[in-house]
Amino acid sequence: MQLARSPLAPVGLPEVPPVAGVRGVALAAELRYRDRDDLLLLHFPQGAAVAGVLTRSKTPGAPVEWCKAQLPGGRASALLVNAGNANAFTGRRGRVSVERAATAVATALDCSVEEVFLASTGVIGEPLPDDRMTAAVGSAAGQLEEVDWAKAAAAITTTDTFPKAAYRRCELDGRSVTLCGIAKGSGMIAPDMATMLAFVTTDAGLPAAVLQPLLARAVDRSFNCITVDGDTSTSDTVLLFATAAAGHCDAGGPDDPRLDGFAAALEALLIDLAQLVVRDGEGAQKFVTVTLRGAADDDAARRIGLAIANSPLVKTAIAGEDANWGRIVMAVGKSGEAADRDRLAIAVGGVTIARDGERVADYDEAPVAAHMKGREIEIEVDIGLGQGSATVWTCDLTHGYIDINADYRS
Amino acid sequence: MQLARSPLAPVGLPEVPPVAGVRGVALAAELRYRDRDDLLLLHFPQGAAVAGVLTRSKTPGAPVEWCKAQLPGGRASALLVNAGNANAFTGRRGRVSVERAATAVATALDCSVEEVFLASTGVIGEPLPDDRMTAAVGSAAGQLEEVDWAKAAAAITTTDTFPKAAYRRCELDGRSVTLCGIAKGSGMIAPDMATMLAFVTTDAGLPAAVLQPLLARAVDRSFNCITVDGDTSTSDTVLLFATAAAGHCDAGGPDDPRLDGFAAALEALLIDLAQLVVRDGEGAQKFVTVTLRGAADDDAARRIGLAIANSPLVKTAIAGEDANWGRIVMAVGKSGEAADRDRLAIAVGGVTIARDGERVADYDEAPVAAHMKGREIEIEVDIGLGQGSATVWTCDLTHGYIDINADYRS
Repeated sequence: MQLARSPLAPVGLPEVPPVAGVRGVALAAELRYRDRDDLLLLHFPQGAAVAGVLTRSKTPGAPVEWCKAQLPGGRASALLVNAGNANAFTGRRGRVSVERAATAVATALDCSVEEVFLASTGVIGEPLPDDRMTAAVGSAAGQLEEVDWAKAAAAITTTDTFPKAAYRRCELDGRSVTLCGIAKGSGMIAPDMATMLAFVTTDAGLPAAVLQPLLARAVDRSFNCITVDGDTSTSDTVLLFATAAAGHCDAGGPDDPRLDGFAAALEALLIDLAQLVVRDGEGAQKFVTVTLRGAADDDAARRIGLAIANSPLVKTAIAGEDANWGRIVMAVGKSGEAADRDRLAIAVGGVTIARDGERVADYDEAPVAAHMKGREIEIEVDIGLGQGSATVWTCDLTHGYIDINADYRS
Repeated sequence: MQLARSPLAPVGLPEVPPVAGVRGVALAAELRYRDRDDLLLLHFPQGAAVAGVLTRSKTPGAPVEWCKAQLPGGRASALLVNAGNANAFTGRRGRVSVERAATAVATALDCSVEEVFLASTGVIGEPLPDDRMTAAVGSAAGQLEEVDWAKAAAAITTTDTFPKAAYRRCELDGRSVTLCGIAKGSGMIAPDMATMLAFVTTDAGLPAAVLQPLLARAVDRSFNCITVDGDTSTSDTVLLFATAAAGHCDAGGPDDPRLDGFAAALEALLIDLAQLVVRDGEGAQKFVTVTLRGAADDDAARRIGLAIANSPLVKTAIAGEDANWGRIVMAVGKSGEAADRDRLAIAVGGVTIARDGERVADYDEAPVAAHMKGREIEIEVDIGLGQGSATVWTCDLTHGYIDINADYRS
């Protein structure tokens, strides 16, 4: 099925700059697709520190298990990503495929097999065509060059209707550093994490022990705050590679104030990528921002926000351009978090609809109805109990979602 | 919007017999709908013992709070149900509406106001038209007769495409007793509980202290095992009224073996009603039974089963008649319950697709594809870890669901 570009897509890809210490190539390995790139190889010739956040699914794909095993080493030399086959639920054969792929990369690039990271996305339960994969790796290793991020971003897509990339620059300990990221994902998207792949490279020089907590915190505020359908993939992977080509920073730990700029840039970059994933949500016609305030704490706020963002009834109402605030009340109630109906306030498009547990007396639906016709929907909920806040992002639930998922075996 | 009768509906309503000690009437109060009954009044002239299970929503409707307050008394004289307005998120005014309605019933039937039970279903956030409600109560009290369950079941529907009723007979302590139930619900259906109303009357003579645990257990195995969209209503209510017209049984407690027949009949009746709700799931084209075995315990089995039954990706695949077992693996993984990918087995339509964590070698998709074209879909999952089992019921996720929920303010 050929999908039309999402109406929520940005006008185009930003001009993502190269990152010193990173080389790469995207090519067509014909693992599942024809006439398109479906394999990405990145190489860090001087090595890189690596951090990662991986799916908490109890049935993860074989590449996820491989990455979990290698992450404690904290060093990476290469990343290999294929699209079209997730190598998930492929049993013993899947583990063999992973070992063969990592060995092929290590041999071709003359690095340790433990420093090869892998990710796969696509259909579940189909064996990976190993021979084509390893042959393509050999070919890719001979074509490495300065990374073309537009090509890289396109090579890892599956049901995506547009490639996703973003970058940030910041100061780190007096030096200018660059962070570049690509991501894929449009369905099977839920926190814990968003079902997707995202890879960030930077020339910053920070050890894995510092990168890991920074990445975990940024993921919590970005990919763990988005949802398309509440489903969680077996393959969710976010990896951060730092080449140190801009020089080393001897930060004492993740809370060292010298890291503030880098941490903020990383979080902003991941929020960019996470929002791009939502903007490509399967069938999405509207981009929805849910802002929660007044919850017992920030975690409670996020859970209530996600209960709203995941509710099929809220999402279909948005698709129907109906400011059905009663369904928002329902979703707050089902979240299981502390709430007092009689303190709840709800605003849509900046217009307060309900306050102190009932509709405001002079509620005028006209401006809210106009807001609902737009592409960008703003929902604000104040629980009225505490200081906890969170922002989550989602899209509407439309006929397009059904079309895509009733017909496509992903 | 006029909805077509669900293709999964039974041929017709069963001939539900009268229950001794119960009188009732359904009539048109014009609270929201025109030209149809929307109010049901039941009267228990000699009183009844009552048990109830109510929504765990943190934002419950005013009638739910009223019922919660009266249930500890354990005695009922009347039940008043209206359709079209849930009297939820209506603030102080909602509480006043409830008191006015209960007082009107108590006055008309000369009973204690604390013995009047109330339930409302329909739009959230709109004030209930009190005057029409109390006027209708006065009119209803003069028309009480032997209950016409078909009319009663129809009067409490909202987006339902068919009325729902069922009955059972059983022996209780040497006497024959009857249980008759009606239910409504088709969207905002999730466990905790299914978003719906269900009312069961019986001529059995059992005290509230015995009825309550029997009802709670039966609800756990019926309404808490169904889902349409994972959303939880602010108004979920199941009430059980026992008139004792068939004579009293002095059972010692809920585990008294003399109650076995009654408990089994109650559970079977609630499963009937719960399945009718799923068969009327908004937009449903297929009725899906998910059977879990081999989980750590029964609760884990139910949670995994509901993760499958709630997954939009599983439900859209079923709508597309695609035996996409990879999405079942995904849903098992996201449930958070103990699972070992390499012990998992999955069968659809009785055909084993995957075993020991991978697709069986000689898998033939043809019989499974044929099964997927039917109305009744059977999914079996064996976790391979323990003795926990559960059965849950759901429906597919179709364009019809989007149509109904993008256009209807419920």
